[in-house]
Amino acid sequence: MQAARARQDTLTKPQGSLGRLEELSIQLAGIYAQPIPSIREKAVIVMAGDHGVVAEGVSAFPQEVTPQMVLNFLNGGAAINVLARCAGARVVIVDIGVAAELPEHPRLHRRKLAFGTGNIAQGPAMTRAQAEQAIQTGIEVVEAEIQRGLDAVATGEMGIGNTTPSAAIAAVLTGQPASQIAGRGTGLDDAGLERKIAVIERALSVNQPNPQDGLDVLSKVGGFEIGGLAGVMIGAASHRKAVLVDGFISTAAAMIAISLCPDVKPYLIAAHRSRENGHGLMLDWLGLKPLLDFDLRLGEGTGAALAFPILQAALAILREMATFGEAGVSEKAR
Amino acid sequence: MQAARARQDTLTKPQGSLGRLEELSIQLAGIYAQPIPSIREKAVIVMAGDHGVVAEGVSAFPQEVTPQMVLNFLNGGAAINVLARCAGARVVIVDIGVAAELPEHPRLHRRKLAFGTGNIAQGPAMTRAQAEQAIQTGIEVVEAEIQRGLDAVATGEMGIGNTTPSAAIAAVLTGQPASQIAGRGTGLDDAGLERKIAVIERALSVNQPNPQDGLDVLSKVGGFEIGGLAGVMIGAASHRKAVLVDGFISTAAAMIAISLCPDVKPYLIAAHRSRENGHGLMLDWLGLKPLLDFDLRLGEGTGAALAFPILQAALAILREMATFGEAGVSEKAR
Repeated sequence: MQAARARQDTLTKPQGSLGRLEELSIQLAGIYAQPIPSIREKAVIVMAGDHGVVAEGVSAFPQEVTPQMVLNFLNGGAAINVLARCAGARVVIVDIGVAAELPEHPRLHRRKLAFGTGNIAQGPAMTRAQAEQAIQTGIEVVEAEIQRGLDAVATGEMGIGNTTPSAAIAAVLTGQPASQIAGRGTGLDDAGLERKIAVIERALSVNQPNPQDGLDVLSKVGGFEIGGLAGVMIGAASHRKAVLVDGFISTAAAMIAISLCPDVKPYLIAAHRSRENGHGLMLDWLGLKPLLDFDLRLGEGTGAALAFPILQAALAILREMATFGEAGVSEKAR
Repeated sequence: MQAARARQDTLTKPQGSLGRLEELSIQLAGIYAQPIPSIREKAVIVMAGDHGVVAEGVSAFPQEVTPQMVLNFLNGGAAINVLARCAGARVVIVDIGVAAELPEHPRLHRRKLAFGTGNIAQGPAMTRAQAEQAIQTGIEVVEAEIQRGLDAVATGEMGIGNTTPSAAIAAVLTGQPASQIAGRGTGLDDAGLERKIAVIERALSVNQPNPQDGLDVLSKVGGFEIGGLAGVMIGAASHRKAVLVDGFISTAAAMIAISLCPDVKPYLIAAHRSRENGHGLMLDWLGLKPLLDFDLRLGEGTGAALAFPILQAALAILREMATFGEAGVSEKAR
């Protein structure tokens, strides 16, 4: 990081004038432990799972949309397929807990832990052993990609209802009330939002998750795809790979990852600030400053895929710009 | 635009969930008058000029840096070269008023109107005829690129001292005091900033630019590259091409363009909010909401080049995503 900072200061521009691009290049130098790192192979890992809590009417879309969207991902027609193509990233799709039988498909990783979580308004989402398995699954999926040459990963997810467990996780870990965190998800009206807040409050009261124990929080009020993404982050960081964290659900996964393993933090890059209500509070809790602010609220990894070109631009600056000496440009008067 | 909006609402995502990407795709549909437009050929037009006002000590870098940086652009070593390459855009470099003889070079457009402007602290920057010529030059340069197939243009500039005339233009047109607009440019200290504010106040008092007359403002307190970029914007808009407006200086050029021709406005896309002090006020005056906020303060078109991939992502969403019907995905419960 010191070498990258020193090089930035010799390039033909006023020092610091590329702002966050410079900061990002220095963070990436630290992540890869190289003064001028490169990112070539990129993937968006999309974890899909369902949520028993949809029985409480917390989503504007029916649960059948989860497997339908997985098929859409496999056919290349979803937003994440389009944005990953734009960024030159592949899409890795994992069924970690969809509440429907999905067909065999060469691009689908079938790692289902259960047909959806339990209804957190009535009991735990999953057992502690399942929470460990979810994280382990994420680690294994990202390690397989790293073995294939992956340099950087973006996190994405699909799961009707998954803003509810994400908001529950955020409420437990930040200590903020559910009303400050929960948002409209895919499009709840006012009554739907009120109901969702009440459901989250009930889930916290029924399950009493322990904020000092990330695995307890995940098992009590989490989701399989959220645990899987926490595993992706832990696995990527342990191999010194950058992680682009997408929006609300991915950020809840990052909170679980950091609860379990604070050393993951410097490997995380927040791609964007979502329109979902409490996302800013969650980013603040993590100490992450998002790159983009586009009012996105889709998930799937869309905001993270959008940010890949910014990472590559930051590294291209470090690698390709001429220094004052090379270009024969006069430096600032002192 | 209506067709693009209607199509966005049939794509497999909650309506509006791609936020600014959706808005941008609809704006671009309007710009190109096509329901699903494409952007293939891209260029950053970099206008270079010098400023007599540097005699007042308003810049941290010496004036010789302007021609040195033009050579750096021609050799491909500057930040704008790197970021334009990342975006797949060519760089078009125009000497419209550098205060030095520049060599012939196949990639340099030699359209010098004078060896720098007059010192605006003592009199006008240029004659009214020169201001017209600067705008005409910009129109001609962008029209030549459009004839070569250009689909979208980003604006960039180089000119030691050019935040001073830009701040003067912004002060005249917004009616705000110079102290609210002027910033540290390439790196002034507190005393330098005080001096710069006093110089801008003197320039306004000596020249009395008429805020109702954009050409008067440009000729009294502007710059050749600023007029050239205003011409690029007017020329691009008149051919229905999108314009990515870079930072502080490009935004001052946009203010001149809009003063002369308000119909240019819908063709402008503000790429980013610069760290330079008054940039937010200028964007508000224009009614433009920037895409990025990266604390950039380099100019050259760097922020605009960074935003090209976002435009292309917005259009790819419109073109490539599956509809609910095509993908067999259930729509929101009503």
